[in-house]
Amino acid sequence: VGQNPPEDDPAMLEVRLRRLPRGVPLPDDFETVEAALPEPAAGQLLCRVVYLSLDPYLRGAISGRHLGHAPLRPGDVVPGRSLAQVVRSRLAGFADGDYVVAETGWREHALSAGQGARKVDPAAAPLSTALGVLGMPGLTAWAGVVELLRPRAGDTFVVSAAAGPVGSTAGQLARIAGCRVVGIAGSAEKCAHATGLFGFDACVDYKHPRWRDHLAAACPDGVDGYFDNVGGDTLQAVLEQLRPGGTVVLCGLVSQYNLDAPTGLSLGPVIARRARLLGLVVYDHEHRFAEFHTRASAWLREGRLRYLEDRATGLPSAPAHFHRLMSGQNVGKSLVVVGPESA
Amino acid sequence: VGQNPPEDDPAMLEVRLRRLPRGVPLPDDFETVEAALPEPAAGQLLCRVVYLSLDPYLRGAISGRHLGHAPLRPGDVVPGRSLAQVVRSRLAGFADGDYVVAETGWREHALSAGQGARKVDPAAAPLSTALGVLGMPGLTAWAGVVELLRPRAGDTFVVSAAAGPVGSTAGQLARIAGCRVVGIAGSAEKCAHATGLFGFDACVDYKHPRWRDHLAAACPDGVDGYFDNVGGDTLQAVLEQLRPGGTVVLCGLVSQYNLDAPTGLSLGPVIARRARLLGLVVYDHEHRFAEFHTRASAWLREGRLRYLEDRATGLPSAPAHFHRLMSGQNVGKSLVVVGPESA
Repeated sequence: VGQNPPEDDPAMLEVRLRRLPRGVPLPDDFETVEAALPEPAAGQLLCRVVYLSLDPYLRGAISGRHLGHAPLRPGDVVPGRSLAQVVRSRLAGFADGDYVVAETGWREHALSAGQGARKVDPAAAPLSTALGVLGMPGLTAWAGVVELLRPRAGDTFVVSAAAGPVGSTAGQLARIAGCRVVGIAGSAEKCAHATGLFGFDACVDYKHPRWRDHLAAACPDGVDGYFDNVGGDTLQAVLEQLRPGGTVVLCGLVSQYNLDAPTGLSLGPVIARRARLLGLVVYDHEHRFAEFHTRASAWLREGRLRYLEDRATGLPSAPAHFHRLMSGQNVGKSLVVVGPESA
Repeated sequence: VGQNPPEDDPAMLEVRLRRLPRGVPLPDDFETVEAALPEPAAGQLLCRVVYLSLDPYLRGAISGRHLGHAPLRPGDVVPGRSLAQVVRSRLAGFADGDYVVAETGWREHALSAGQGARKVDPAAAPLSTALGVLGMPGLTAWAGVVELLRPRAGDTFVVSAAAGPVGSTAGQLARIAGCRVVGIAGSAEKCAHATGLFGFDACVDYKHPRWRDHLAAACPDGVDGYFDNVGGDTLQAVLEQLRPGGTVVLCGLVSQYNLDAPTGLSLGPVIARRARLLGLVVYDHEHRFAEFHTRASAWLREGRLRYLEDRATGLPSAPAHFHRLMSGQNVGKSLVVVGPESA
């Protein structure tokens, strides 16, 4: 007799919030527990999670600061999207064995009623790319670069979180458009990936005390377009390098997610440079997914678009891996390998 | 024998910087001294200042933070634009007796080589309006409303520094465009002018502890367009009331001019609302001056466009009047009556 179900009951693991995090979420803010395997009702799918996606927006979602999310309460399963395989379909249009991207939460198995679920062709590209370069992060980069920034050949294009899935894809899309691309990232290793694997022209380590000088040196003609994933001091520094008429896409505020109060920000350079700051929410651009996916898949096959993953194995590693992401230690798209691709 | 020139020398007054101000400039940061009346060389005008314009941008100009201005040094004459009368013209296109708006600095008389000087028709409107509603502040409002915000009838339009020359004109232009106009200002008196003289639908006193609630109540459908003259906490509060797709014109940062470090600002609402923030520099829009002036002059004559002035008399009053402006005590366009309209 105990908390665990009897051994002959089908069981699985899930990760629940133990307490609301303060600042950077700690592994101890979560707990991994056994739960009964759910049964799909009519109109539902039972999904087996293969890859769980860890994304910065989850920090806001946990605290109720992300669009459409109420704050979590202790005991709630942590939300999150996964690449999963349909174990049992009771929903028209989905067959057992199909791969889907769906909201599952941090679970080994989950039910889905199909809203927001998208089928993934396992022959088109490695399955995990559906969570990164060919998924929501990739579409985010596409929306910011192709729809909003619209860089021209020869422009100087800057992107922060340059080794992350959004930043690395945004920089590569700008390179494909003919820009000179300068990344900003938080370690020498990340910068090496940006200029190596991703082919950026330069990358600046913002943890170096003289990084503002490095940025200015890397952008001798100023900055035409900036894809901002971090906000705060990094945004301030790039605003001061903007060319007149420059454009900034505001996509994320990773530097701010764990703060109680926002850091000081002077918009003086926005006025002086007659700049435009444009807020980006990827959900506005979902109707462009097919176009994005077709183009990006082709570039991926041709090797013009590359990606990097930061993997951990086993659902119980999700809390520590999320801590790694939220403290900026990840290198590439953060995901947890929850189960094998084929069961 | 002393600092003053001999009595039979034509002399005039000018105001020089005594020391660089810290925070809000104090009258004591300046000194009024006698100087010799200058002689116009070939290609120059000698101008007699009638109305000296005091404007917030001068705070940045003194410290070298305004476009094209090096920081002032002690002993330098304070820069500034005036409505002046040509006393002696040695420049083609200008006759003795002409009225001009020109860069004169804080002086009773000044030379001008004509760059940036604009002739003013004394029959078209009261002369002092050339520094306010029909001058640079008016063009600033026009550029922000007509060129950048482009409000539609029925929009909720918010403007800060609502009793000032830029804000009051911007709000009235938005009203002419059919908007519901809500002002933000720093006293009950200013708010009374906004809703009375200027015909705004509402005005919120940001010094009231519950002003954010008042703003929300005055904008029950959210804010479509915001003309921001102040930055800081006021900008933050309006960002949080923006409707999806809302637009903000960043025109001034009066709340920040006297600070050593910028106040905290969260751009989270800009992302969440997919908003646009657009920097405005009036100099980009000088080629629209004729169109603006024609339309605004007509509205002024029809009584659809109104203005308010905050006058002081005599050049020596300029330092105290500038302190009044920079501490937000002015009500309306700040100017100093330096001499009579007709000499």
